[in-house]
Amino acid sequence: MSDLKDKFAPLFQSRSIAIIGASSDRTKWGYIMLKHLVDGGFRGAIYPINTSGDEILGLKVYRTVADIPETPDLAVISVPAPAVLNVLKECIAKGTKAGLVITAGFAELGETGARMQREMVELARKAGMPLIGPNCNGFMSPWNKEYVQFPTFLVPAGRVAIIAQSGNVMDSLTRQVMLHGQGCSICVAIGNEAVLHFEDYLEYLGDDPHTSVIMCYIEGFKDGQRFLKIASEVSKKKPIVIVKGGKTRAGAIAAASHTAAVAGSDLIFDAACKQAGVIRVRSLDEMLNVSLAFLWQPLPKGRRLGIVTGGGGWGVMGADACAEMGFDVVKLPDETIRALDTLLPTWWNRGNPVDLVAGSKPDNIYKAVEQIMQCPSVDAMMFLSMVPMLKIRAFDLPTEADERAKFGEVLENAVIEAMEGLNKLVKKYNKPMVVATEQIFATNIEEARLPYLLGKHDLACYHMPHEAARVLLALADYARYRGALKPE
Amino acid sequence: MSDLKDKFAPLFQSRSIAIIGASSDRTKWGYIMLKHLVDGGFRGAIYPINTSGDEILGLKVYRTVADIPETPDLAVISVPAPAVLNVLKECIAKGTKAGLVITAGFAELGETGARMQREMVELARKAGMPLIGPNCNGFMSPWNKEYVQFPTFLVPAGRVAIIAQSGNVMDSLTRQVMLHGQGCSICVAIGNEAVLHFEDYLEYLGDDPHTSVIMCYIEGFKDGQRFLKIASEVSKKKPIVIVKGGKTRAGAIAAASHTAAVAGSDLIFDAACKQAGVIRVRSLDEMLNVSLAFLWQPLPKGRRLGIVTGGGGWGVMGADACAEMGFDVVKLPDETIRALDTLLPTWWNRGNPVDLVAGSKPDNIYKAVEQIMQCPSVDAMMFLSMVPMLKIRAFDLPTEADERAKFGEVLENAVIEAMEGLNKLVKKYNKPMVVATEQIFATNIEEARLPYLLGKHDLACYHMPHEAARVLLALADYARYRGALKPE
Repeated sequence: MSDLKDKFAPLFQSRSIAIIGASSDRTKWGYIMLKHLVDGGFRGAIYPINTSGDEILGLKVYRTVADIPETPDLAVISVPAPAVLNVLKECIAKGTKAGLVITAGFAELGETGARMQREMVELARKAGMPLIGPNCNGFMSPWNKEYVQFPTFLVPAGRVAIIAQSGNVMDSLTRQVMLHGQGCSICVAIGNEAVLHFEDYLEYLGDDPHTSVIMCYIEGFKDGQRFLKIASEVSKKKPIVIVKGGKTRAGAIAAASHTAAVAGSDLIFDAACKQAGVIRVRSLDEMLNVSLAFLWQPLPKGRRLGIVTGGGGWGVMGADACAEMGFDVVKLPDETIRALDTLLPTWWNRGNPVDLVAGSKPDNIYKAVEQIMQCPSVDAMMFLSMVPMLKIRAFDLPTEADERAKFGEVLENAVIEAMEGLNKLVKKYNKPMVVATEQIFATNIEEARLPYLLGKHDLACYHMPHEAARVLLALADYARYRGALKPE
Repeated sequence: MSDLKDKFAPLFQSRSIAIIGASSDRTKWGYIMLKHLVDGGFRGAIYPINTSGDEILGLKVYRTVADIPETPDLAVISVPAPAVLNVLKECIAKGTKAGLVITAGFAELGETGARMQREMVELARKAGMPLIGPNCNGFMSPWNKEYVQFPTFLVPAGRVAIIAQSGNVMDSLTRQVMLHGQGCSICVAIGNEAVLHFEDYLEYLGDDPHTSVIMCYIEGFKDGQRFLKIASEVSKKKPIVIVKGGKTRAGAIAAASHTAAVAGSDLIFDAACKQAGVIRVRSLDEMLNVSLAFLWQPLPKGRRLGIVTGGGGWGVMGADACAEMGFDVVKLPDETIRALDTLLPTWWNRGNPVDLVAGSKPDNIYKAVEQIMQCPSVDAMMFLSMVPMLKIRAFDLPTEADERAKFGEVLENAVIEAMEGLNKLVKKYNKPMVVATEQIFATNIEEARLPYLLGKHDLACYHMPHEAARVLLALADYARYRGALKPE
C-alpha cells in the first residue's frame, strides 16, 4: 500500500506543477486551470509553459518543460491532441513524476486516437509515470489546496471522495457536496483511463485518511475482476457508492462514444456490487443522499423500524416506502405504547407510524421519539413532517414582507434546533434516524439554504419519504456487509 | 352535469360563509381560517359564530347560526366533535346549502366516532347538503378568493386542481405548485369523505373550466367501480395524476388509522389506473413534475426519442433512463447526421445522444436541436446539461462577492432565455421536449429561484435525467389513452 501512496503523491500531494499549454486567453483551459490553481492557494511552485513565453497571472512563463529550473512533480498537459505525445516525452525526459492529460481526441474518437493513446500508455509505463486522462477535466485535492480543474468552484476540504468517468458528472457531484455544506478529499475525472484505471483510484482512496466515503460514477471497467477484488477490500473500510451509466443498450452505445468504455451486463454488475459490499444507487441525487448519510449516521443492527409522523399522509407514504425497501414497520410493544400514552393526546392512533395528531407538544415529541429509540425491538427510525416539532406556529407567521425576510432566519434556526434535538437521540442510542419533511413555512430561498446549513452540522432533511427510506436501505445493506447486521 | 355544478357551487363558488367555532385566539383553527378568508379577499359575506359574541378581525360575531341575517351558502364547522351534530342540525334548520366539517374524532377514531359520522351522513343526505370532511383541513378556491383552510399560504388562481385524502399532503402539494410559479383551481383536503366522496370531486373537476390537470393523493376508495367509471370519462378530457398511499401492508395499516380508508390490492389498482387512463406516479415530487408538464407540453405521437447533451455522462444517464421507460433512442437518419455535421465541431460523436462537445456554439446548438425536432423519426426530445447553451462562460464569472450577487440575475436570465429558445421549437414542431440540467454556475439561492421563474413562463428544468424521462413517460402514456399515440 505504501507503494500506492508514493505513486499517487506527485498527483494529489503535488509540491510543484507545470501547466503545459498555459494561456493568457481567459476562454482557454490553459488559463482557467492556472487561475483555479492560483485562486485555490496552491502552496507549491507553479510553472506555466507556453512557447510564447512572457507572464500569466503574475507567473513567469517558460517556453518548454526543459527550461523549468526544477523537476516538477506534476505535468498538466492541455495542448492539442497531435502535440500531446511529444510533450509527454519532454516531461519524461525532464523526470516529471506524474501527468494529467486534459486533451481529448484519443480512444473515444476512433482508431487514430486509439493508436496515440496506446503510445501514451507505453511511454508512461516505461517511465513508471502515473497518468490521469486523457480526455478529462482534471482533479481537485482540496487538502493540498490543489485545484487542477475546469469547474469554476473550489470545493472545501472534506471527507467525500469522487471518482467519475465523466467530467460533468464530477462537476455536478462536487458542487452538490458543497451545496450540502460538506467538502471533498479528492475529486477526479478519470477520462479515458489510459494509464491509471478506476480500480487504481479506488484502491488508493481505500487507504486515504481524509476519505470517509467514496462516490463513483462509472460506465465500464478495464478489469472487472480487479474491480471486484479491490472493491471488496475497500468496502471493509469505508462505503463505496456507485452510479453505473450504460445500464441499457441505448446507454451503453452512448457510453462507448463518451469514454470508449465497454459497458457489461447490468445484472452481472448488480450481483458483483452485492458481493463486494458496494452500494449501487440509481441516480446522482440518490448517490448524494446516501453518501452523505454515511458521514454521520450509525449503522442499524437490523431492519425493524419505528416511524413518527407529523402528518397522516406522510406516515402512510413513509410506511409504504420503508416496507417496499424491506424494512419491518414493527408493532410497538405494549410497554412503549403505554409510555407514549403519557406523552401524546388521548386520541393518538396507538400504532406505528405514530401519528403526532394536533395537540402534541414539541417537548413531548422528543420524549416520544426517545421511547421508540430505546425500544429493543426497533433498530432504526424515520421521522416525517416535522412541522409540529418546530417552535414556530402558523399564528407566529409575520404578514409584512420585511418581517417575513427576518423570519427566514428564525425558521432556519428552528429547523436546525429540531434536527439537533433528534440527532442527540441518534448519538445516545447509536441507531440511525432519517428525516423527511415538507418545510411548510419556508420560501424557496429558505428551503434552498437549509441543506447547506444542516450539512454544516452533519445533518440532513430529505424532501420525500422515499428518499429517506432509500438512505436507510443503504445503511442496512452496508451494515450487512460489515457484519454489523443481525442475520435475517 | 349541471346538477353537479349546482351541488358544488355553495362550496367552491360560495357567496357567503359562516365560520362556526370562530375564535379570537390566534392559536385556534377558528381564528386561522377566518384570517385566511379575510386575507384572501373573499368578496362575499363572512359570519363568525361564537357563543361569546363580540367582534373578531373587525367582523361582527353572531351567537348562533340562527342569528345570521341571511342564509349562508356555506357553513364551516370547527367545534369539538361532541358538538358537531347539533351544530349541523342548526345549519340545516337555517337552510345552509353546504358544509365543511374540520373537526376530527369520527370514523378514524373507532366505533363511537363512526356512529356520529353515520348520523352526520344521514342528516346531510336528508337535507340534500353537500358536506366536505369531517377530519380535514379545508379547501381553497382561489378563483373565488375563497381560502377556508389551515395552511398559512394563499395559492394564486391557476390551472392545477388538488384532491387529497390528507391535509398535510394537500399543503405540501399546494405549496410546491406555488414554488414552481403556478397556481391552483381548487385544492381540497377531503378527510373522512362522510358525504362527498373522492369520486364526486373528481367528477366535478372533470368539467371545471379552470382545471387543466388533476393531482390526487388517495389511500382508498369508497366505491372503486365508480372511481373507475368516472376516472375513465374525466381522463378523456384532462389528465389525472395519482399517488396512492397504502400500497404495502405497513402503509395500509397506517392508512386505516389515518383516514379510516381501506386500501385495496395494489396490483388491481395499478391495472385499474391503466384502464382508466390515470397516470399513476410513485411520489409527490414525481406528481408535481408530471402534472405541471401537462400544462405546457404537447403529447408525443410515439416513443422515438432524440437526445442532445452538453455532457457525456449526462447523455449516458439520460439514454439509460429513457430506455428503461420504454423509449426508443433512435438511430438518427443520415440526412440529419449530415445536417448536424455542418453545425457541430468535426469531432462530434455522430450518434444519439448528440454530445455537444467543447467548441459547440450556442446558436448552432438551437439549429442542431431543430434538425432533430423536425426529423420525422423523432417523436420527442430530451435536452441535458444546458451549460454550453448559456450565454455565460466560466471565464465570465465574477470573483468579488457583490459582483457575484448581481451575477445571479444574469445567470437566471440566461437560463430562462435558453429555455425559451428551446420552447420555441416545442411550439413550432408540436413535439414535447424535456430538459434536465445541473445549474453548474448557480448558488443554491439561484437554483431555488429558478423553478419559480421558469414556472412563471410555463417552463421547467429538472434536476436529473430520470426525472425528465419520467415526465416523458407520463406524456406518452396519456397520449396512448387519448389515442394520440401511434399503435405500438
